[in-house]
Amino acid sequence: MKIITISREFGSGGRELGKRISDILGYDYYDREIISAIAEKSGFDENYIKEMTEKKLRVNIPISYGRTMYYEPYINTNAEKILAAQSSTIRDIAEQGRDCVIIGRGADVILSRYNTVNIFVYADMEYRVKRCLEYSENEKDMTEKKIIKKIKEIDSARASFHSFLSEGKWGRKENYNLCINTTGLQIKNLAPIIAEYAEIMFKQKRSK
Amino acid sequence: MKIITISREFGSGGRELGKRISDILGYDYYDREIISAIAEKSGFDENYIKEMTEKKLRVNIPISYGRTMYYEPYINTNAEKILAAQSSTIRDIAEQGRDCVIIGRGADVILSRYNTVNIFVYADMEYRVKRCLEYSENEKDMTEKKIIKKIKEIDSARASFHSFLSEGKWGRKENYNLCINTTGLQIKNLAPIIAEYAEIMFKQKRSK
Repeated sequence: MKIITISREFGSGGRELGKRISDILGYDYYDREIISAIAEKSGFDENYIKEMTEKKLRVNIPISYGRTMYYEPYINTNAEKILAAQSSTIRDIAEQGRDCVIIGRGADVILSRYNTVNIFVYADMEYRVKRCLEYSENEKDMTEKKIIKKIKEIDSARASFHSFLSEGKWGRKENYNLCINTTGLQIKNLAPIIAEYAEIMFKQKRSK
Repeated sequence: MKIITISREFGSGGRELGKRISDILGYDYYDREIISAIAEKSGFDENYIKEMTEKKLRVNIPISYGRTMYYEPYINTNAEKILAAQSSTIRDIAEQGRDCVIIGRGADVILSRYNTVNIFVYADMEYRVKRCLEYSENEKDMTEKKIIKKIKEIDSARASFHSFLSEGKWGRKENYNLCINTTGLQIKNLAPIIAEYAEIMFKQKRSK
């Protein structure tokens, strides 16, 4: 079983790259499907889950350590339940034993003992804003300023989620097999090469 | 004219990757040749230049700022002359107008206005030590401990040289088009894919 995980900065085209790679290689593809599975596991509404996982997580640690120590009053144990359901969903996917591409959701860390190739996709802010304006249903009517704010918020949420799972910092190149800067690139031209790269990686792992 | 620059952690196989890419694409290849050119320009001996460029640079800044301010007594103006000759050599290479691969020496930064694809090659320490023991003439008789020390020194020298040329930190993924983790990989299997990637990158740049 071969699993390609795609971690990505918001707006960098990581999702499109992952989808195209899965089409080229004939792998299963998991992206928003994961949200539905989490909903089923946790009992929460899909929209609520989506919203929660795009927010910076509030966690059970003192936020005013050293002065009066107290705990964040809005500790969201729902967040914790969602995170647990998410990890469990990712593992379920892997346990099916089928070749797949998984977009985000910490799959690179959660599946560290599986046969994975971990890819990180990133790009300049300017390019990411442009992509959001051109391609995204949710952002194409937003102002540039609002898009930048949203990009930063979502990236921050992703980094925060990652820090729950691993000490390694989100987006640190050492955690990935390949980091691709998509600035100025057309993802459709890039996808066949990255698919080929992944196949070589898996072949080489097998031959060891 | 197309220029591929390969920046690399010591022992990661970046040089081998660059050489193979140049062979595949039929590009000129510049690596140790650069040292000879610097020698010619600066009048220094090649071995001396090699030694200097593998050391952390001593620069003309106060090292005890805030207490008694004084200047490092061993300011090495030879280092500055070598750096200048190196930058000038890199630009000369680019000005020849021929497609080429350039290994290290800050070419990614020095040639930022040219048509470049910038690649960073890195790997786990364990893999880099193994590579040094297997492949390198200079390190294969060293102890593991000594090799690790050497790797750290040379990487530190490269980072230090980079900081002269640019505010961007050496090895920070945002400065490169592609970052490749070679841990466990055979470079000869990787090279054709990366060569193909570079060709696509240049084609796409031209079409804009």
